[in-house]
Amino acid sequence: MTLEGLPAGESIDMEALQTFLDRRAPGRNDWSTPRKEADQPEFLSGLVGNVTCGAPLTAIIRNTNTRSGDYDGLSVVPRPGHADYTAGVKYGGHADFAGGGAFSGRLTAPLCIAGGICLQLLKKQGIEVISRIASIGSVEDVTPLTVSTADKPFPVVDDAVGETMRAEIAAAKAEGDSVGGIVECAVLGLPAGLGGPLFDGMEGRISSIVFGIPAVKGIEFGIGFGAVRLRGSENNDPFVVENGTVRTTTNHCGGILGGITNGMPLTFRAAFKPTPSIAKEQQSVNLNTLTPEILRVRGRHDPCIVPRAVPCIEAAAAIAVYDALLGQS
Amino acid sequence: MTLEGLPAGESIDMEALQTFLDRRAPGRNDWSTPRKEADQPEFLSGLVGNVTCGAPLTAIIRNTNTRSGDYDGLSVVPRPGHADYTAGVKYGGHADFAGGGAFSGRLTAPLCIAGGICLQLLKKQGIEVISRIASIGSVEDVTPLTVSTADKPFPVVDDAVGETMRAEIAAAKAEGDSVGGIVECAVLGLPAGLGGPLFDGMEGRISSIVFGIPAVKGIEFGIGFGAVRLRGSENNDPFVVENGTVRTTTNHCGGILGGITNGMPLTFRAAFKPTPSIAKEQQSVNLNTLTPEILRVRGRHDPCIVPRAVPCIEAAAAIAVYDALLGQS
Amino acid sequence: MTLEGLPAGESIDMEALQTFLDRRAPGRNDWSTPRKEADQPEFLSGLVGNVTCGAPLTAIIRNTNTRSGDYDGLSVVPRPGHADYTAGVKYGGHADFAGGGAFSGRLTAPLCIAGGICLQLLKKQGIEVISRIASIGSVEDVTPLTVSTADKPFPVVDDAVGETMRAEIAAAKAEGDSVGGIVECAVLGLPAGLGGPLFDGMEGRISSIVFGIPAVKGIEFGIGFGAVRLRGSENNDPFVVENGTVRTTTNHCGGILGGITNGMPLTFRAAFKPTPSIAKEQQSVNLNTLTPEILRVRGRHDPCIVPRAVPCIEAAAAIAVYDALLGQS
Amino acid sequence: MTLEGLPAGESIDMEALQTFLDRRAPGRNDWSTPRKEADQPEFLSGLVGNVTCGAPLTAIIRNTNTRSGDYDGLSVVPRPGHADYTAGVKYGGHADFAGGGAFSGRLTAPLCIAGGICLQLLKKQGIEVISRIASIGSVEDVTPLTVSTADKPFPVVDDAVGETMRAEIAAAKAEGDSVGGIVECAVLGLPAGLGGPLFDGMEGRISSIVFGIPAVKGIEFGIGFGAVRLRGSENNDPFVVENGTVRTTTNHCGGILGGITNGMPLTFRAAFKPTPSIAKEQQSVNLNTLTPEILRVRGRHDPCIVPRAVPCIEAAAAIAVYDALLGQS
Repeated sequence: MTLEGLPAGESIDMEALQTFLDRRAPGRNDWSTPRKEADQPEFLSGLVGNVTCGAPLTAIIRNTNTRSGDYDGLSVVPRPGHADYTAGVKYGGHADFAGGGAFSGRLTAPLCIAGGICLQLLKKQGIEVISRIASIGSVEDVTPLTVSTADKPFPVVDDAVGETMRAEIAAAKAEGDSVGGIVECAVLGLPAGLGGPLFDGMEGRISSIVFGIPAVKGIEFGIGFGAVRLRGSENNDPFVVENGTVRTTTNHCGGILGGITNGMPLTFRAAFKPTPSIAKEQQSVNLNTLTPEILRVRGRHDPCIVPRAVPCIEAAAAIAVYDALLGQS
Repeated sequence: MTLEGLPAGESIDMEALQTFLDRRAPGRNDWSTPRKEADQPEFLSGLVGNVTCGAPLTAIIRNTNTRSGDYDGLSVVPRPGHADYTAGVKYGGHADFAGGGAFSGRLTAPLCIAGGICLQLLKKQGIEVISRIASIGSVEDVTPLTVSTADKPFPVVDDAVGETMRAEIAAAKAEGDSVGGIVECAVLGLPAGLGGPLFDGMEGRISSIVFGIPAVKGIEFGIGFGAVRLRGSENNDPFVVENGTVRTTTNHCGGILGGITNGMPLTFRAAFKPTPSIAKEQQSVNLNTLTPEILRVRGRHDPCIVPRAVPCIEAAAAIAVYDALLGQS
Repeated sequence: MTLEGLPAGESIDMEALQTFLDRRAPGRNDWSTPRKEADQPEFLSGLVGNVTCGAPLTAIIRNTNTRSGDYDGLSVVPRPGHADYTAGVKYGGHADFAGGGAFSGRLTAPLCIAGGICLQLLKKQGIEVISRIASIGSVEDVTPLTVSTADKPFPVVDDAVGETMRAEIAAAKAEGDSVGGIVECAVLGLPAGLGGPLFDGMEGRISSIVFGIPAVKGIEFGIGFGAVRLRGSENNDPFVVENGTVRTTTNHCGGILGGITNGMPLTFRAAFKPTPSIAKEQQSVNLNTLTPEILRVRGRHDPCIVPRAVPCIEAAAAIAVYDALLGQS
Repeated sequence: MTLEGLPAGESIDMEALQTFLDRRAPGRNDWSTPRKEADQPEFLSGLVGNVTCGAPLTAIIRNTNTRSGDYDGLSVVPRPGHADYTAGVKYGGHADFAGGGAFSGRLTAPLCIAGGICLQLLKKQGIEVISRIASIGSVEDVTPLTVSTADKPFPVVDDAVGETMRAEIAAAKAEGDSVGGIVECAVLGLPAGLGGPLFDGMEGRISSIVFGIPAVKGIEFGIGFGAVRLRGSENNDPFVVENGTVRTTTNHCGGILGGITNGMPLTFRAAFKPTPSIAKEQQSVNLNTLTPEILRVRGRHDPCIVPRAVPCIEAAAAIAVYDALLGQS
């Protein structure tokens, strides 16, 4: 993981960073894989005594707990919904299947190191990134997202709904199955004027990072797909002046107009598909013989990736926003 | 509009390109703005007698029908839902408001030139991009998208549903209001193995271009947000062999696994918000006096941008896919 | 020509820009080609009344005086020293040979538009780019470069040496031959701290643009190749304090240490080969028959490109420096 | 060090790579610093059993032999000719001075890992990169470069001249001084048609990497600055046909016409300034007090960096050439 362009002289709180990384790390509870990974980054450059020195910041995490045997044979009988087949087509027999290689959710760990650092640098400028689980399967948390859920073991706003979500995950797990969900994110304290038109817009900048997180299949800003059903007169956010500042009375646009922030919270939601690696029997094919084959995936997999995806989404948002801030002249 | 990296020796069918551009051009019917713009590109470089010569291909379109007076005052009393306010914050009083400047939907014209050329080059390789209006307001066309709607004046699969959609647009227009919708797109004939993991994935590549189209507020691949409600065993697309080729029986993943194409149709849907420029009175503020002001937008605006957005989405998909194909070694 | 990232609100002096472009334009005197080209840019976007508006700034120049017949046959019997052969290999029969296409020195006109704008923006920050002809053939101007030569018809510091250089050019022209030379450039008033280590260094940033100018075959910073013959104790520039500012007593390093400016003038020299298109008979081959063929190049070509290259070098330096300034956070 | 875009399935000869890296490593003889560094890369990703797997290839080298005390105080009394002062201006007191940080010649080690891999991949395509010391101080090796010098402890073509060069280095060392030199490089077996016009030219691609090597202050292609003194009729390389292939009888252009390779050897020369860190007393200033101060640099430094720079130049050329080859469609 290498971050370029960080200003020199910024001190990084390593303890806070580790706390952030622990939110993503697996093996902490009953809804995530029992694989235990330390996720302790080792910084190779860019820091002098926890202070950025202007050089590119590079950190690595070693993968200490891979049971390669778990992944034998996946290049011959690919898991449905996973990248086994497409990686095999692209890279031939050379793809790295141990632990999922470049397609593994584990690769969100370096994203979280980079994002965790950006989150700290944003906070110094009064910008906060908060997020929560908005839904698991068909269970939705409809209370508004206004405060951080970072301290909660299960990051929802409404803990009662959270209990129902956990039951949904437990039910899927009991059946050897998995379940998806939605993560909602808000960036608070952003100045107006960040981003730009066309391919420079905040929507494109954020989505190109968020789609780098495995299992994301959709993203929407503000009310997103919901805007489709509204009339323009309902969807447009009226301008008002509050304490000498221009605000909008609603925030259907998610704080972005014409690709540029308007000073309201920047909000978006990302859809995560259910984890493709499930214990249930599935229909696949043997790529050597081109005959059907029933697959039962071994290995230790999350019945639901969504809780651990919450800090990944915060990291992605922080990277995109901090990059846009740095690029301003 | 400049396209770099096109191979030399590819002939461009200018008539077909113009036909494609005409699908986007305004002023052709009652659901689009009465502004008439020719949208005839002038090619400045990159072609020798309609054949690519290896140099960057540059084309321009002149904006012949701007009535600047229509846009007076928007920098003082910004239109809700539009970029007037955010552009003013970013660029000061210097933003170009005539015709919406860099934030105008007219800037999809150059996107369509680039995309129209890519569409022709893809077709030579047996790759076709089709799309349709999937919904207008709450009216949905649920018939599957399997063939091109390019020849239809109103690009839907089910023409009866199309009539209802047109009525919805007419109703909004009659009220001085606007309405949004969803465009669905499918890329047929793609080889498996295109794209890559993480930030190189097809979802990110496509979304970063699609979000460059004004008014897009969401995108989803395959069943997208719908996958959230499915179990992994339901969402995973089972592999089968058909005529010696690996296929999947369903296509919930939209033809993309781990960011890489799997040989099935690549499908996605983009959500367009209702046009923010409406004739109805709206609440805004005077930025000079910081007092409330009621705004009634003059100018000639589409009551619904979605029909004209269909070729834009095809263009965006074609550019992303052709770029990924060119980048393959 | 498109410039992105310019701040909004900067006014461009169009008269000064045209004066700058005229320094590059051909047909003005006896040492340049008699082709007369207007080099009048037409601005398509990015400006509102000569003030930047934040949108990408695009300008075009039309090539009004091409005699295509002059270039017939060059794809069959390529000119030695020119790109005819290599362009033919790369682009097949599709390369654009009229006026030299993408390989023509005429393509320095858009470079000069971009550079002329950057020069104006730099000047507002107290940064000046000056340059001069340092040598033509073996005639050298060894007086130091300290002031602009922009107002001179033949841009040298020592006008007497300039007369000898002009005689050298006239002699080459009389023989149907051409001659090369060196352009020296200095950027004055730069702050210390611009650039970065490794691939971010000012040398690499400047050279990647300067080598985009046709006929450049070498570049050196400060005393460049001359440093090779010095001991470290001779080459190192001693630090001193002058009026509270850190300076160096010599400037062998050309104002760049570790890729970063040190506050002294940034200096470099670029070597231009003699114009390859000469009237003299030359040995070539017929690419259809693969037999030897004697070539006599028709067309109107500069016997020496160096005088017209002086503003191009200033433009390249200005673009690289202004880009580095904009990128600072 | 991360290399992206390598095709999957390429096996890397680790022994050959280490042999290449050893050519750059210090501490092997009397003309290089007595610091002994292993330069043994550790590969973190991108390889499965020494075969590329399609994922980005990342390797690290740990700096095992830094004596930080050697570098104390350099941020207060900067070394002339070194980046101490400019890094301090740019990064404040936060620059990493241990071992020179991001400005150290040690950072050519990762360049050589990347380049060493590219060299192997080029060799499989019949492309060889050779180089040699062309001069040390004023001692020049004028015999043509036609074969590799990789096996020689002192990489010159004419070993007798090499002895004189070594004496020159020894003399500088004895005086606590340093000396510079020129490295010449040739890429053999390149196909014609690689590169492109303007900013895509091979000269710009190569120079932007070569200037990333610390101490390089100039680069020239073919006869470079020497072309300045020739007439066009002398400098142009006449085309001939040899065994059915188009060749040139001379190679003044260094195998590049219009930025594109012509099938002849691609040749260039890079000028290295004398190592700035010398034992001799030098004039500097105390940045805290802004008073003059005499500096005597401690630490173990090469009296001449040029011999160890030879593989770095090969690495830079290999990276640029292989990148251009991969980018071809």
